[in-house]
Amino acid sequence: MPRVVVDVTLKPEILDPQGQAILSALGRLGYAGVSGVRQGKHFELDLAEGADEAVVAQIAETLLANPVIEDFTIRRP
Amino acid sequence: MPRVVVDVTLKPEILDPQGQAILSALGRLGYAGVSGVRQGKHFELDLAEGADEAVVAQIAETLLANPVIEDFTIRRP
Amino acid sequence: MPRVVVDVTLKPEILDPQGQAILSALGRLGYAGVSGVRQGKHFELDLAEGADEAVVAQIAETLLANPVIEDFTIRRP
Amino acid sequence: MPRVVVDVTLKPEILDPQGQAILSALGRLGYAGVSGVRQGKHFELDLAEGADEAVVAQIAETLLANPVIEDFTIRRP
Repeated sequence: MPRVVVDVTLKPEILDPQGQAILSALGRLGYAGVSGVRQGKHFELDLAEGADEAVVAQIAETLLANPVIEDFTIRRP
Repeated sequence: MPRVVVDVTLKPEILDPQGQAILSALGRLGYAGVSGVRQGKHFELDLAEGADEAVVAQIAETLLANPVIEDFTIRRP
Repeated sequence: MPRVVVDVTLKPEILDPQGQAILSALGRLGYAGVSGVRQGKHFELDLAEGADEAVVAQIAETLLANPVIEDFTIRRP
Repeated sequence: MPRVVVDVTLKPEILDPQGQAILSALGRLGYAGVSGVRQGKHFELDLAEGADEAVVAQIAETLLANPVIEDFTIRRP
């Protein structure tokens, strides 16, 4: 059964305060080697045998991401 | 500047009601080809030049995931 | 149209690394007056005229929270 | 020790696909009495004795919400 992964992130120009909080925490905890953090959502979809994978983009646009403020990528894990 | 991605998902034995809700919605909207959905978190970390990438696992275990209920994977995008 | 709010939080005994990250960031940014942070999910449900509000608890248990690891509260805003 | 709750929601004009997915799932599962669902984030902050509660709004604006796309409310639970 094929699995497809959809990762959703805020568009680069949109501030991500949660990512900023993690970055700030990293600095405080001594992880100086990290210069940026962005947080997003991750979805794993199991497709039925013979399912049309083309629908995954449609699903991502409709139910998983808001295309006005978010980007998404689709990949095979 | 190397980027590293950390994906965090609930352990397989832990119920994911949000993923279930998406699966149910997909069925209602006619996307019959999807047989399972799991939802997780996605983090993108930018590492400074020469940063020790080995710390990423430590960061994931401490700040990004709760290892009791969640798994994580680390990859280069 | 009555609105109902469902707030979902990890059970107190379950570690919340995201809340910890925010707490750590607050310390770094000089907000010393905060001694604990927990992160959860927030849902606002609009009920149709005459809807049976008793179903909200059932919805929360099934689709919004995982009762094994999460608690939820229901309230009128 | 006073506790303060910050709830963060997408601004009303911004589409919330996750809320839509839950609404759609509710319809499929027979919960016809719900006419709208919005999803957000929920934060519980414990303040130290004598802490200045006025900083909570500042924290919410900086670390918990992105004021361009999100609203927040602060309340005593």
